[in-house]
Amino acid sequence: MRWAVIVAGGSGTRFWPLSTPAKPKQLLPLASPEPLVVDALRRLEGLVPLERTLLVTGPALAGPLGRALGLPPANILVEPRAASTAPALLWATAEAARRDPDAVVLSLHSDWAIAENEGFRSDAGQAMAAAAAHDLLVTVGIVPTRPDTGYGYIVPGAPIESTIRKVARFTEKPNASAAADLIKGGAYWNSGLFAWTAKRLRAEVDAHARELAAGLPALDKGDIAGFFATVTPVSIDVAVLERSQRVAVLPGFFSWDDVGTWDALLRTLPKDASGNVLHGVVHLDASSGNVIWSDGDPIVVRGVNDLVIVHANGRILVMPRSAAADLKSLVDPLPRPVRELP
Amino acid sequence: MRWAVIVAGGSGTRFWPLSTPAKPKQLLPLASPEPLVVDALRRLEGLVPLERTLLVTGPALAGPLGRALGLPPANILVEPRAASTAPALLWATAEAARRDPDAVVLSLHSDWAIAENEGFRSDAGQAMAAAAAHDLLVTVGIVPTRPDTGYGYIVPGAPIESTIRKVARFTEKPNASAAADLIKGGAYWNSGLFAWTAKRLRAEVDAHARELAAGLPALDKGDIAGFFATVTPVSIDVAVLERSQRVAVLPGFFSWDDVGTWDALLRTLPKDASGNVLHGVVHLDASSGNVIWSDGDPIVVRGVNDLVIVHANGRILVMPRSAAADLKSLVDPLPRPVRELP
Repeated sequence: MRWAVIVAGGSGTRFWPLSTPAKPKQLLPLASPEPLVVDALRRLEGLVPLERTLLVTGPALAGPLGRALGLPPANILVEPRAASTAPALLWATAEAARRDPDAVVLSLHSDWAIAENEGFRSDAGQAMAAAAAHDLLVTVGIVPTRPDTGYGYIVPGAPIESTIRKVARFTEKPNASAAADLIKGGAYWNSGLFAWTAKRLRAEVDAHARELAAGLPALDKGDIAGFFATVTPVSIDVAVLERSQRVAVLPGFFSWDDVGTWDALLRTLPKDASGNVLHGVVHLDASSGNVIWSDGDPIVVRGVNDLVIVHANGRILVMPRSAAADLKSLVDPLPRPVRELP
Repeated sequence: MRWAVIVAGGSGTRFWPLSTPAKPKQLLPLASPEPLVVDALRRLEGLVPLERTLLVTGPALAGPLGRALGLPPANILVEPRAASTAPALLWATAEAARRDPDAVVLSLHSDWAIAENEGFRSDAGQAMAAAAAHDLLVTVGIVPTRPDTGYGYIVPGAPIESTIRKVARFTEKPNASAAADLIKGGAYWNSGLFAWTAKRLRAEVDAHARELAAGLPALDKGDIAGFFATVTPVSIDVAVLERSQRVAVLPGFFSWDDVGTWDALLRTLPKDASGNVLHGVVHLDASSGNVIWSDGDPIVVRGVNDLVIVHANGRILVMPRSAAADLKSLVDPLPRPVRELP
């Protein structure tokens, strides 16, 4: 049967000062009036039922996410430590297999913005069907809309069936000209939307992922603490997808955004007539292209363009949108009380 | 003897959201760590003693100003209504004359920034001496440092003695090219720093100021409410100085600023190495020429130039410095709760 695994990590720095370790990106309403993770769950409606949807997260977020989602408590898998995506997905896939040995698993993240949920469901369903029919690890490649240097790319290879092709290679975050060349060559963005049967993932881990292999006996015994204590933190891309020969890609025909920066909100949220994204009480005059977000006090602006202005959690941030991609280097050196609040 | 009258009005809009009706400009530390009005009082030290210094203000500010200044309560004159400078100065001058018929009065405002207090004391003392010696209304003209269109100008006329000259004419706020012409012709800024004997001011009011004349019987009886109820609100410049033939000007050789806008703080307060004026907890990266003021939460900025950024009284303001002169038109249309808080 179909299963879904939602990966919900995040350290809460990309949307500072709005995001915090206790309330990272997926708990913020960055693409709709609901938190991103609620959007993610809604997106699965009609594709995978709640009782077969698993969420993998850390101890700090298990409570808030559980409350936000209404998932069965047994479906919230709490990682004893953050160890990137491979251990999380391997565990969740093993849990699905424990309940349903023929599980076909869809892997997705909790913090995406996807505008066309129908397209998502159709392509994700097709990926799961292909994963079962061809016994492959299937990636859904997003048709790029710009030469983004923040994403990995998937270069498709030999055709398998219909629009499904083997993966020729993965490319991690390219520079701008390499990104343009990749797009010209028909490459896709690697969204992190994957499908596989539980059996095939386990076989590929056995064959390729030495970082994880030592943990498998513990995992098989249900000793999750032992499993996480043993494995090396590694992404599913590096540990399995880039090494396996049984990886396919099918194009996803829906807009997809990982909402990685304040700037991204201009793509994911409604804009006013002057191209501003506004949240909270904002009084605006002669200003365009701004992202202005107040969870705190009213913000009054005049004659400013292309800025990010935020008041949240007792902090105020003002920077050009163009600086949004490097927010971490601004926030990291701040005195610790500023970083640790609230 | 020498007397000083400090006029302390102000509606509290120019430094919104920091300034409020209850805490207008003169109660803010806009030129030193002390409120402007405290600077004003300190500036008189050695020139006029506290017991001969009168302060004219409204009922809302009498308490805060009295506490800030430590003036004798009898020296704080509380106007029953705001009526511009002429009624205030006429009343305060009459009060000085009541206590000292030979009073020579120096009129100044509570909200100026003056860097060279020695120069101020020297020139103000000279103005008072000249007012007594020549029986004239003496204005101290500030040597302009830029063609400011926000100030009135004094055009000097025939010499009287040393640097003292008759006033040929006053000019209200000129446009930029007229201001440049005025400066080329040797005109001064009209600062509002004046000196007169109580007798001469009364004589000139009798001769020229019909707006005030009807109130004089009440004033002479000490019926201040009756005086203010009768007079027409008018400035001392319009009511007396522009009409009288007995007006002189002497140049003031000290820097003077009326701190009329957020932008003015770049002239009155210390700047960091990148030309920013900073107040409160501000974390700055790659940013220059800004005025950033927090009486509230820490402000973090990167890569922004020539902006005014303020958090005070539960409001946040962001605008280019170039918009500072027209703040009123931004703030006035705001919903009333925003205007009326704190």
